[in-house]
Amino acid sequence: MSGNTIGKLFTVTTFGESHGPALGGIVDGCPPGLALAEADLQHDLDRRRPGQSRHTTQRREPDKVRILSGVFEGLTTGTPIGLLIENEDQRSKDYASIADRFRPGHADYTYHMKYGFRDYRGGGRSSARETAVRVAAGGIAKKYLRERLGVEIRGYLAQLGPIRLDPVDWNAIDDNPFFCPDPARVPELEAYMDALRKEGDSIGARVNVVATGVPPGLGEPIFDRLDAELAYALMSINAVKGVEIGAGFGCVEAKGSVFRDEMTPEGFLGNSAGGILGGISSGQDIVASIALKPTSSLRIPARTVNIRGESVEVVTTGRHDPCVGIRATPIAEAMMAIVLMDHYLRHRGQNQDVVRTLDPIPPSAF
Amino acid sequence: MSGNTIGKLFTVTTFGESHGPALGGIVDGCPPGLALAEADLQHDLDRRRPGQSRHTTQRREPDKVRILSGVFEGLTTGTPIGLLIENEDQRSKDYASIADRFRPGHADYTYHMKYGFRDYRGGGRSSARETAVRVAAGGIAKKYLRERLGVEIRGYLAQLGPIRLDPVDWNAIDDNPFFCPDPARVPELEAYMDALRKEGDSIGARVNVVATGVPPGLGEPIFDRLDAELAYALMSINAVKGVEIGAGFGCVEAKGSVFRDEMTPEGFLGNSAGGILGGISSGQDIVASIALKPTSSLRIPARTVNIRGESVEVVTTGRHDPCVGIRATPIAEAMMAIVLMDHYLRHRGQNQDVVRTLDPIPPSAF
Amino acid sequence: MSGNTIGKLFTVTTFGESHGPALGGIVDGCPPGLALAEADLQHDLDRRRPGQSRHTTQRREPDKVRILSGVFEGLTTGTPIGLLIENEDQRSKDYASIADRFRPGHADYTYHMKYGFRDYRGGGRSSARETAVRVAAGGIAKKYLRERLGVEIRGYLAQLGPIRLDPVDWNAIDDNPFFCPDPARVPELEAYMDALRKEGDSIGARVNVVATGVPPGLGEPIFDRLDAELAYALMSINAVKGVEIGAGFGCVEAKGSVFRDEMTPEGFLGNSAGGILGGISSGQDIVASIALKPTSSLRIPARTVNIRGESVEVVTTGRHDPCVGIRATPIAEAMMAIVLMDHYLRHRGQNQDVVRTLDPIPPSAF
Amino acid sequence: MSGNTIGKLFTVTTFGESHGPALGGIVDGCPPGLALAEADLQHDLDRRRPGQSRHTTQRREPDKVRILSGVFEGLTTGTPIGLLIENEDQRSKDYASIADRFRPGHADYTYHMKYGFRDYRGGGRSSARETAVRVAAGGIAKKYLRERLGVEIRGYLAQLGPIRLDPVDWNAIDDNPFFCPDPARVPELEAYMDALRKEGDSIGARVNVVATGVPPGLGEPIFDRLDAELAYALMSINAVKGVEIGAGFGCVEAKGSVFRDEMTPEGFLGNSAGGILGGISSGQDIVASIALKPTSSLRIPARTVNIRGESVEVVTTGRHDPCVGIRATPIAEAMMAIVLMDHYLRHRGQNQDVVRTLDPIPPSAF
Repeated sequence: MSGNTIGKLFTVTTFGESHGPALGGIVDGCPPGLALAEADLQHDLDRRRPGQSRHTTQRREPDKVRILSGVFEGLTTGTPIGLLIENEDQRSKDYASIADRFRPGHADYTYHMKYGFRDYRGGGRSSARETAVRVAAGGIAKKYLRERLGVEIRGYLAQLGPIRLDPVDWNAIDDNPFFCPDPARVPELEAYMDALRKEGDSIGARVNVVATGVPPGLGEPIFDRLDAELAYALMSINAVKGVEIGAGFGCVEAKGSVFRDEMTPEGFLGNSAGGILGGISSGQDIVASIALKPTSSLRIPARTVNIRGESVEVVTTGRHDPCVGIRATPIAEAMMAIVLMDHYLRHRGQNQDVVRTLDPIPPSAF
Repeated sequence: MSGNTIGKLFTVTTFGESHGPALGGIVDGCPPGLALAEADLQHDLDRRRPGQSRHTTQRREPDKVRILSGVFEGLTTGTPIGLLIENEDQRSKDYASIADRFRPGHADYTYHMKYGFRDYRGGGRSSARETAVRVAAGGIAKKYLRERLGVEIRGYLAQLGPIRLDPVDWNAIDDNPFFCPDPARVPELEAYMDALRKEGDSIGARVNVVATGVPPGLGEPIFDRLDAELAYALMSINAVKGVEIGAGFGCVEAKGSVFRDEMTPEGFLGNSAGGILGGISSGQDIVASIALKPTSSLRIPARTVNIRGESVEVVTTGRHDPCVGIRATPIAEAMMAIVLMDHYLRHRGQNQDVVRTLDPIPPSAF
Repeated sequence: MSGNTIGKLFTVTTFGESHGPALGGIVDGCPPGLALAEADLQHDLDRRRPGQSRHTTQRREPDKVRILSGVFEGLTTGTPIGLLIENEDQRSKDYASIADRFRPGHADYTYHMKYGFRDYRGGGRSSARETAVRVAAGGIAKKYLRERLGVEIRGYLAQLGPIRLDPVDWNAIDDNPFFCPDPARVPELEAYMDALRKEGDSIGARVNVVATGVPPGLGEPIFDRLDAELAYALMSINAVKGVEIGAGFGCVEAKGSVFRDEMTPEGFLGNSAGGILGGISSGQDIVASIALKPTSSLRIPARTVNIRGESVEVVTTGRHDPCVGIRATPIAEAMMAIVLMDHYLRHRGQNQDVVRTLDPIPPSAF
Repeated sequence: MSGNTIGKLFTVTTFGESHGPALGGIVDGCPPGLALAEADLQHDLDRRRPGQSRHTTQRREPDKVRILSGVFEGLTTGTPIGLLIENEDQRSKDYASIADRFRPGHADYTYHMKYGFRDYRGGGRSSARETAVRVAAGGIAKKYLRERLGVEIRGYLAQLGPIRLDPVDWNAIDDNPFFCPDPARVPELEAYMDALRKEGDSIGARVNVVATGVPPGLGEPIFDRLDAELAYALMSINAVKGVEIGAGFGCVEAKGSVFRDEMTPEGFLGNSAGGILGGISSGQDIVASIALKPTSSLRIPARTVNIRGESVEVVTTGRHDPCVGIRATPIAEAMMAIVLMDHYLRHRGQNQDVVRTLDPIPPSAF
């Protein structure tokens, strides 16, 4: 299938550009009978929405999603769900200055080389604005997983530049504009971002996502392993440069005698594996971590070339997130939800008639 | 598609277990007219082959691949290429002791929970033995990419436990059993591995893979980005827990003014991006890095449960790699080759008629 | 992929119900640089549009399509093209009487059994109203194929009930509401339909579709043969019960010495094969024929069951086409265009570097 | 996916040429726990096998299938099943005379134009020999469907040239070399075929396939309708030029009041629809019919061109079936089985949690 579809049984296909009339998508394969209304999706859209604090882009978009099909009398029908989000606050003229030159670190040059030309307004299709549809689609998966399987998917900002955020208070995350899990550190983040904005610079970030309550058995080895598909889905988020499952790169220096998560009837004795063994969920928490690069769109001038190959300078004056990682939490949650949903349906398609000899081991005995 | 196929236009589907009669696969979508013989694939199979030094498993497999179709008078015909590798040195009785219990950190438990039972001999389908077929299939992609596009794909061991291997001498890599890029460090690796083997323990590793000569334009946003598909393909390798593109997690603490790779007519001024912008290759080197966990199959006893859910101890006496990362280099190269090949065909399918206004910028001006 | 996507490289995914707010779709994989405007798609939408004569349903829909993405400054960008068609003339209350009972010969019962309940308004997702999006999407394929390859795709009504329409005047087809290729027979068709409408009954039809100018080489054996994919695409049209390629069922009584289309340097000496040999286009006209059943929605009462399994009677009073075959011509053309477009891209993806030793044989020497 | 894979959850990928060392395939997605041995597949392979009567090709192939993976201790494991069938009776020199010229009505010309050259020995990949793997793979689906769902899939020769075979005695079909359902007509078929062989000519045929016991609900509208996928699968069989579901082309002259299959609590009052409504199975018998063209490989000389485009004559002296339809019955059954199996898994993947308000209506009250 062409590149704008994710999933095999539960599929999400999206369209839309940063400065076109609308974004949208089609969610195909959602089981029938799920209670679903636009309001169910709005909460996560609002979490991702720009312009909610001084630390993110000042573009003002209501990001109101419309459900155009696939729901009848409040329930999903099993047919495709059409989603539409109108763009309202485009300022395309902001981009006239970059029409003929490539912003370094952006998709400008590669889109031009791939397609011969590009929609330069706000990055066109390569803009992270497209992720609004992912969040809406992921909201459907999240709702199904929560209501039918008891799966919760939650993320948080784990690191912003040099600031590592450690103790996780799940209740605090939505109470600050950073998805920071430690309320005591919010002033530190604010001070850092204010200074950064003055410099005209940007910074990277790390976001963690955790799914609890995932039943064992999800994932299709050899290639469509659950971890491989999560890596695909998370790496497809704009600006992501790395994906870890469980201990991730921490495993490089680890010894097997320590790293392997021993098992007892009372539960696993560790979760280095991040809930996935052999590409299949173990019933432990699914834990993933992503690295998001600093945006390249800066007031600070940069050397680049134009569409005629000449050396020029570029300065970006549009509205941008100085740390794209800040708004990435709901997007990462959505992508994990889409993957888990797809694999849940695929798993029960192939293995519905399996009779297990064993109750699942509890996620954790520690 | 079910889980044992990778790719859309250039597809690889594999079958086979560690202790079954044979492994095999089907490569579909290879362009016609490529000169291809079994000997072309044997070199990488030999690089991956077990039993070549005391530092890897002592299982002795010739890993001779047979091409059963798709080649006529020495040239690929455009029809599917059937590959077959016989298993010769199975010692299934080694595994009788684990038939009823789950090795921690392995796929034993998850396969059992997914499918209701499992082929316990040598890990069955979850064994890394399956990667022999990937290496053979990847060899076809590598040959096409090299001969038709001038693309070279090479990997090396970047870190083994605490030992980081830095200066890369491409010519040294195949001259030692570790794929170590720095010949001066080989004795250190040997000493480390000998000590580890005495302990009965295992260790993690990091492997880097680099593709040079990749034309700009490969990758299909939004989901099938080149980096997303590389993450999927590399994470699907047994024991991989993390994938980075370019600077990877190094981007978290980086500022945009430094991280963005500025451009000049003479070339890019950096490659933090690892050769991929907006999910599309830029013409720079494609750089990926993976973390491989230490194997969990150890002589050191571990707590676990059996198929009746009872607490038991497990000791693994089969033949295992104390560092699965050592033999991972040709596998990682193969997976990168398969992804690049697929994306090359997809790109020219959609964009063959694009007329570019610009010659590609050289990969690097530094 | 779930069931609402067709194609591999050029893909079309649709959503929408008969009485929902809108229909829509996403065309992914269209090459960049194609001049495209909404007006380009409107012509075929108007040909399919209901309410244009007394012989089709009296529902009044302007079927105005909006292009929401994928086009910039009048050219396709290579990114997904979002399409939207608002529903304007729903009369959902017409359907209250069938909410609890299944119309025989309709999807009512099977949707209910598959999904547990159904959107009964106008057939919901199973309504042929959905084909409006196919026609819009097919229009993009048609335009590309015509402008870049010189391929023309045209259909006509070949039979309406007992009336067979033989000599094909391509110029006459769009000048009557039946897509009848023989203008002299139009009054006969009108009389037949008027009588039928009085009876309250419906009738079947046969539609033929022909593509000229198709280059040899399109189609991917063994399964994704061009004829197999055409059969899939054409059988997916509502009410279609049979698909033929070339001579179709006429081959059953044919002898090989007559049926095989001999070849000379001046051209093929026949086209029994309908332009496809071994699943691959031969350069001759692609010829397909489909059978469309009579609609089951009639004023004439029928025995059926309700959602509680009780015996009831059903009468359909909504607005329906007494011969669904009449409006099927542009839909069949669209489906053929989508398949040819997808196979053209797939073919050049895999075989772009093939050097042929032979000029194509002309389509026909007779 | 490239063209040699069929299915989404239950997938079959094949490889192999007529005169290569072996044919084979991979069945991915088979549920675990199915008792499976090579002997289970051999029965249908023997039904398809050449050389069993004087009315089919005299090539002698034992067609012994080996299962190379995916089965452990007699049960499928849920992992891919590797299948291998060695070619034993190749006489490639028979084909030297056609190496440089294209047999009319064959894939010779189209393969040459698509791929630039071809494996001319016995038709290479385009040979119907490839269908042996389909029959083996279909045997797995058949066994699952029979044992788990009570579905029976059976076919028969419905017409051979002018001879129509009507009353169906299911017990007689396997007792004659024609799959003729009426034992009284077998001498007539033998006489017809003997005369035909003397002429050196070939003849077309029609084969019907029927599945009983299929539960309602299988099929994924809009595109992946059950009838659309059956049309795809059946049209992909070599020599097939037409596919009908239920009444097929008989619907063209039918009126809706007669054609619609009315329903009562005691069952459907007809099956014009062939068991599929709106692309979804209704619980009635799935009925399909295919037209197979006469083979073009004849002793009778034909005009053609050679690979340099010159006018030449061709005579085929290899071993061929004078009526390819005769051996097509088990192939058609296999393809229907593969499609039903895939759709059964897809359906339960998406709709496992549907609670139906209604017991299925019996297939037929007549």
